[in-house]
Parts: sequence; C-alpha cells; structure tokens
Amino acid sequence: MSDHSLYMQRALALAEQGLYTSSPNPRVGCVLVQQGEIIGEGFHRRTGEAHAEVNALQDAQQRGLAVTGATAYVTLEPCSHTGKTPPCCDALIKAGVAKVVVAMQDPNPLVAGAGIQRLRDAGIAVELGVLAEQAEQLNKGFNKRMRQGLPWLRAKLAMSLDGRTAMASGESQWITGPAARSDVQRLRARSSAIISGVDTVLMDQASLTVRAEQLGLDDEPLVAAIVAKQPLRVVLDSTLRLSPEAKLFTQPGPILIITAVAKPQQQQALQAAGAEVLQLSNKQGQVDLAAVMAELGQRGCNEVLLEAGATLAGAFLQQGLLDEITVYMAPTLLGSEARPLFNLPLSSMSQQQRLHIQQITPIGEDWRIDALAIAPVESKG
Amino acid sequence: MSDHSLYMQRALALAEQGLYTSSPNPRVGCVLVQQGEIIGEGFHRRTGEAHAEVNALQDAQQRGLAVTGATAYVTLEPCSHTGKTPPCCDALIKAGVAKVVVAMQDPNPLVAGAGIQRLRDAGIAVELGVLAEQAEQLNKGFNKRMRQGLPWLRAKLAMSLDGRTAMASGESQWITGPAARSDVQRLRARSSAIISGVDTVLMDQASLTVRAEQLGLDDEPLVAAIVAKQPLRVVLDSTLRLSPEAKLFTQPGPILIITAVAKPQQQQALQAAGAEVLQLSNKQGQVDLAAVMAELGQRGCNEVLLEAGATLAGAFLQQGLLDEITVYMAPTLLGSEARPLFNLPLSSMSQQQRLHIQQITPIGEDWRIDALAIAPVESKG
Repeated sequence: MSDHSLYMQRALALAEQGLYTSSPNPRVGCVLVQQGEIIGEGFHRRTGEAHAEVNALQDAQQRGLAVTGATAYVTLEPCSHTGKTPPCCDALIKAGVAKVVVAMQDPNPLVAGAGIQRLRDAGIAVELGVLAEQAEQLNKGFNKRMRQGLPWLRAKLAMSLDGRTAMASGESQWITGPAARSDVQRLRARSSAIISGVDTVLMDQASLTVRAEQLGLDDEPLVAAIVAKQPLRVVLDSTLRLSPEAKLFTQPGPILIITAVAKPQQQQALQAAGAEVLQLSNKQGQVDLAAVMAELGQRGCNEVLLEAGATLAGAFLQQGLLDEITVYMAPTLLGSEARPLFNLPLSSMSQQQRLHIQQITPIGEDWRIDALAIAPVESKG
Repeated sequence: MSDHSLYMQRALALAEQGLYTSSPNPRVGCVLVQQGEIIGEGFHRRTGEAHAEVNALQDAQQRGLAVTGATAYVTLEPCSHTGKTPPCCDALIKAGVAKVVVAMQDPNPLVAGAGIQRLRDAGIAVELGVLAEQAEQLNKGFNKRMRQGLPWLRAKLAMSLDGRTAMASGESQWITGPAARSDVQRLRARSSAIISGVDTVLMDQASLTVRAEQLGLDDEPLVAAIVAKQPLRVVLDSTLRLSPEAKLFTQPGPILIITAVAKPQQQQALQAAGAEVLQLSNKQGQVDLAAVMAELGQRGCNEVLLEAGATLAGAFLQQGLLDEITVYMAPTLLGSEARPLFNLPLSSMSQQQRLHIQQITPIGEDWRIDALAIAPVESKG
C-alpha cells in the first residue's frame, strides 16, 4: 500500500468515528502530514460542530506543529460554501497547506467540485480519487441522498438457513442469538430512521429504539450520544390501526406514522401520544412507499433501516426501493410451512431478483449476509 | 505450533492426497523424522496398494537415509492385522523407529488400540492424540462406518438466498455458477456413492457421474484415477418407474436401483441395461431409507452424497439420517412461491432442526455453506 493510501486509510478510520453521530452530515476524516509525520487528525462528530479539516488543523496547532507546506488527506472534498460552519477550503488555504489529497468529490450540488477548484485557484495541488471506493461506501446514505434526493434503504431480516423468518403461526422470537441482536442495535444506531409496519409494531410489541446496554460499544460518551439521538421511528399504517397505548410510545424518540387514510379522530389521539401523522397514499389506497422514501430524503435521512415482515419487505423490494439487504442467518431449519423471507410471487427464473453478496461473516452462532439489490432482469415472458 | 503438530500437519496433508482414491480404506499419511529432518513421506493411495507407513519407509530407503531411531508421525493408528497388505506395525518395528506419534486411534474394531499396544510391546514410545480433531474430520466417513456400520451422509443442495431451489414449475437449471458446479464434482469424487431420487434422475436427465473436465484439478493421473473409479449411483425408485433408456445408463459407472416393489419385468429390463436392483421397503410401502444406509455401509461406502429434491432430502433429514448439509447459495431471490430447501412440515419453534454451521466460503459468485445436523430438540408440544 502506498503512503497516500495509508494516510487516507487513517483518515477513513477517523471518519468512521462519526458513523453514529454525523447524520444528516457525511462522515468525514482528515489527516495532516508534514514530511512523513502525521501532525494533526480530525473528524466530523455532529452537525453544528467543526468539520474534520478544521479539527485536524486545530489538533496540529494544539500540538504546536507547523502546518505550512503540509499535505492534507480528506475523505470527502472540502466544502466551499458557508453552512453552519465556514468553508473548510478557506481554512486549509489560510493554514498554508501545500497539497490536498481527496478520496472523493462531494456529491452535494452545493460543492460538487467547487471546493477542489477553490483550492487549485489558491495554488494548492489537489489529488482526487485515493481510496474513493471506501469513501463512497462509508457515506452511501449521504451520497445517494445528494444524488437522488433519496435515503439509502437497508432491509434487516433474520432467517433460518432455509430462508424462513417465523413459523406459520407467527411464532418467531429469538431465531438469532444475542450477538446478532446487538449488531442490529448498531444498524439502528447508524440509521437516521427505522421503518416498520403496523403489524410488526403491534404483534412484536416492538419499540424500535437504540438501547445503550445492547449496543456492545465501550465508549461511554459515544453511547450516550447515540442513545440521545434516537432514529426517527416510521410506522407504515395504511388504515391507522396503531393504538396510542402501543409500547412504541413509552420509549424515547420521535415517531412518524404514515397512513393512507384520513381519520381525524385516530390521528389526533396518536398526535396527542406524541407522534406525527402524515397521509401519503397511492392510487390503490395503500401507503405510497416511493413517497415515503422521498419524504425521508427531504427530512435529511441518509441511511434508513427497514425492519418489517415479509409483506412490507417484499413490497419495497418489488418496487425497486431497496438498496441493501442485511440478513442474519441462524443455524437452524424452520421447515417448508414457515414464513418466507420476502413475499415475492415470481413464476419464472427470468423474474428472479439478483443480488450481489458482498460478504458473509460469523456473528456469534449466526452469520451476517450483506447483499446489494441488483436491478431485476428484464422479464422474458 | 509445536514441532509435533507441524509434522502431523504435513502427515495430514499427505493423507489428503488419498481424498478421492483411498475408499473404502481411510485416508492416511505418514512422515518420518530423524533429528529434526523429514527423511521419508508416504500416504495411502488406494486399496490393495501399500499403506502410508510402508510408503514412507520406502521413501526413506530410496533416499538412502537411515530410519533407525526415527520418529514416525501417522494420522491413524498403524494397523496390527493382515488385510490385503501385512500389518504396518510390524514394518515400523522392523525398521527400528524409536517413537510413533499417532493422531487418532483406529476405529476399525480389528485394530482399535491393538496397533498401539503392539508398538509399545516392542519397546516403541507411542504418543496419541496430536491433531486428533483434524484426523477425525478427514475420515469422517470411514470413522462412522467403523463405529456404526453406516456411511457419513452429506446432502448437497443449491438454493437462492431466500432458501429456494427451483420455481414452483420445477424450472431450476443454473441457479449456481460454474465454480460451484465444479465444487459439486469434487464432492461426488470424494464420495463412495451418490443417492438420488427417480424424479430428479428423470426430470433433470441427471447422469450423476464425475466428469474429468469439470473437476477443476490439474493432476492428470489423479483425474484419470478419479474418473475410472466412478461412485456407485443409487437411485431410489419406490415403484420402479426408471426407464432403461434414461441418460444415466449411457454414462460409465455402477448403478444400484432401490425399490419398494417387486416388478420382475421392469427389474429385468433395468438389469439388462446394467443396473443392480434391490428391494428394500418399509411398512408404509416406501423405500426404507435407514435400510438403504445400512446396505451402503455393508458395501464399504464411507461418504455418501445425497443429491435429491426437497421431498427425499426432507425425508432423510426427518429420519435423522443426515450428518452434514452442503448448501451452495446463489446471490438471488426466487420468491415465496418457489420450492423449499427441504419438505419439512413443522408447526412450532420447538420442532426446529438445529444445525451447526462450520463455515461459509465464497465460491465464484456463490457461497458454500457447510453445516452439521444436530439432533432435533425434543418437542415440547
């Protein structure tokens, strides 16, 4: 691995420290290098606080090290616009760095190359594209939202080796073990919102929150920050059946109920219980799933986690709204009468939904499968 | 890793060279070490030929190296009885080795510690149990047959990520890619017999043979030996529906048809086509699966591969006859109408069939899952 890649790897590791807290901003890390030595490091922790570059410059300053002539490694193009903080480009220019190595261009239309141009205009050498793929992955939610206005949607599912999620009766609790359940908590924590269906919320008495003791993280201030910043809980409830008594309401964090009907009385009761209620229906009188995603994009959600049963998960999949599928596979067989992973009625191989399995890793006695959805093959029928 | 383990590791690697050819004998390797140097190596290639120990002694002799006072590392207890070749114990004693390190005792009741005793009686130090687990794994078929009179039964299945093997119509060809299919060829090659159902044989026009060009092995003499030693093809055909015109008969290798009925005419036609026909029925008038396994055990089959549809695979599973499940999982979803992995009608979680997933490895674009069957949890119902 070249020096460039090594420093960028470090910058990416720093960026990852913002994994659970930076949203709606991207996760960004920065390393300052002077004559082969790292003289400053920084990352972006949360919106309103300093960006990675400024934190790295400050770090160097606190160490009493000169930044003039240094090379800055940044995982995302430095911003050129004034948002909640002044542009990072100006800070780098002012500090006198000689070179900036950037993993990837900022997909934010407000930046989109303007930051790099500004640096070059100031006589700073800029190199773009070092570990671009990793940088892209780290912020797949932010990137998709900037490019398409939509969040990155990941479905989380738990299944047996034979692809079943529950017995026909619905009996399902504890298919997977504690390590997998803790991993799900971390998926929730990195998500801006969690979508579930009203049936799941009612049947499983789901609270859909991030719980400190189940996160499996040692960093206490980080855990406190995560728990304080609960993801938005989105319940899809086409006929507004959710009761204000549901367990969901007893747990902290914002709740958005999306329905397909206007039922002012139920709506008011749910609002009184602390939820926001929104009507987004399609022509079939169901909740409009594409509109849900657009709504969450507008609200600044980068990554959204879908925790739903086979019907809702199958609907998102069939409408091409799923980007990623994270499956926890338990070492068991639930049999051929048990519930399917997705309600997905296909009749010929040409209709199959192809995936790209990125990795499969052991987690306790279970296995986590990370797969990307691939656009369906055109039907030959 | 200790020196002991390193030499035994080498002996195990040698033993593995007999993976495809040693059956019905076990895979055995031997390393001779004199003052920290390997002076001779050997393995057992096939029945009737020399055992690993004798080959290692011969190797040392050919190299002109003295064996007196050496330590022998053997993956299986040296035999003490005269089979097709004289006892290996005597060869080691005669050669004057000072010590014998043995991975595991021979489960063969004709040996079962007698070999070790014979060595000790001759004043040779014997150490037992170095890398015993690996040695046990390498010969799981032979070991089970020696202990229980039954072969090790592995089911090979190909499924989508959602646990489906084919569309409802039966359409299924090419779920997995060429690398996985080549791997299946190697599973066939290491098996003494392949069991399939008559439906699979008729519908898929399966030949159930090992094909040289698909093995993915470079060693030409080995490939020739593998192809010359086709596994026994066992077709379960309760009502004797198999036609003597089936593709199966056009391919080389022995065929055993097991039926539940006496139909002399069909039987004769199948025999004339080159098959052996056996009637093994249970009280329900079906093929008696336990009797099939006992029959194959008596015929010296160590590892048996089950390549069958969901019904037959489910029956073997439910009768507790499956030891291992090798699943090739393709990165695709076939949907909730598609055929299940096993026909396994369970109604409560307490009936689930637990597995131990040993490993999951990428193979081309597919993933191979190796799992062991665990005795079913006692039903609470």
